[in-house]
Amino acid sequence: MTPDAFQDYYPDDYAQCYGCGRLNPHGLQIRSRWDGEHAVATFEPRPYHTAVPGFVYGGLIASLIDCHGTGTAAAAAYRAAGRARRAGAPFRFVTAALHVDYLRPTPMGTPLTLRAHVKELKGRKVVVGVELSAGGEVCARGEVVAVQMPDRMMSA
Amino acid sequence: MTPDAFQDYYPDDYAQCYGCGRLNPHGLQIRSRWDGEHAVATFEPRPYHTAVPGFVYGGLIASLIDCHGTGTAAAAAYRAAGRARRAGAPFRFVTAALHVDYLRPTPMGTPLTLRAHVKELKGRKVVVGVELSAGGEVCARGEVVAVQMPDRMMSA
Repeated sequence: MTPDAFQDYYPDDYAQCYGCGRLNPHGLQIRSRWDGEHAVATFEPRPYHTAVPGFVYGGLIASLIDCHGTGTAAAAAYRAAGRARRAGAPFRFVTAALHVDYLRPTPMGTPLTLRAHVKELKGRKVVVGVELSAGGEVCARGEVVAVQMPDRMMSA
Repeated sequence: MTPDAFQDYYPDDYAQCYGCGRLNPHGLQIRSRWDGEHAVATFEPRPYHTAVPGFVYGGLIASLIDCHGTGTAAAAAYRAAGRARRAGAPFRFVTAALHVDYLRPTPMGTPLTLRAHVKELKGRKVVVGVELSAGGEVCARGEVVAVQMPDRMMSA
């Protein structure tokens, strides 16, 4: 049994995201889950997600880190508040800042693993560190500064 | 007359990139040009490039900044070397680090403008600053640390 993903709990209005929206048929549909204190996700790049032949496109890597990071931020906020994920007004986070260090070229043809941990959780802000690996080797390391979505985005 | 884009000069082997490869029919096909000391590009997000309804997906913004940044790095390296873009072995850059500050939500339904400038050019490394605007308002600011492509990627 695979546990539900964080993104399964996003209300429909917030499930349109190109990176992680379950209702966006064109998108990446990233799905993130707790594994103890870490949040994990896997993603298999499509053949056209390439930079140069044989290697994964860096913008895809940034996108995976971004959505896995904001999903982890939301899940951590629920956990910290001791709230069930379907109860009450949804916590939904957006990215204030994204940083990615590309440590080595990421090979195509193998699933990518994302592993995130919460570095800081304070008020409306959560800082999440994310490692992206291929074949057991860390290829990129990122940091996502996530903030609770401003009201002007929620009323769009 | 629209001048040729930097990416028009990439050899076919390097024109497969999801972000800026002219030979990747699934990709974004970003095209960057000089405008004096700045490099500019425009991109019109597709309806599915959304975060929440009405706003552009942050991973797309990161991808645009990344490819416009590395394209600018390559063009700046040619200019600094006083070389024509079709002559000799190609300069091609990859991203060592990417940082994006999301200053405000980026609205859908209007073309995005990217404006880059070279902050540092030294040896095999070029640092490029990029601003992304919508409707005349800067929505995101990024920095790309680009390095000349390692040989192990060129022989893939």
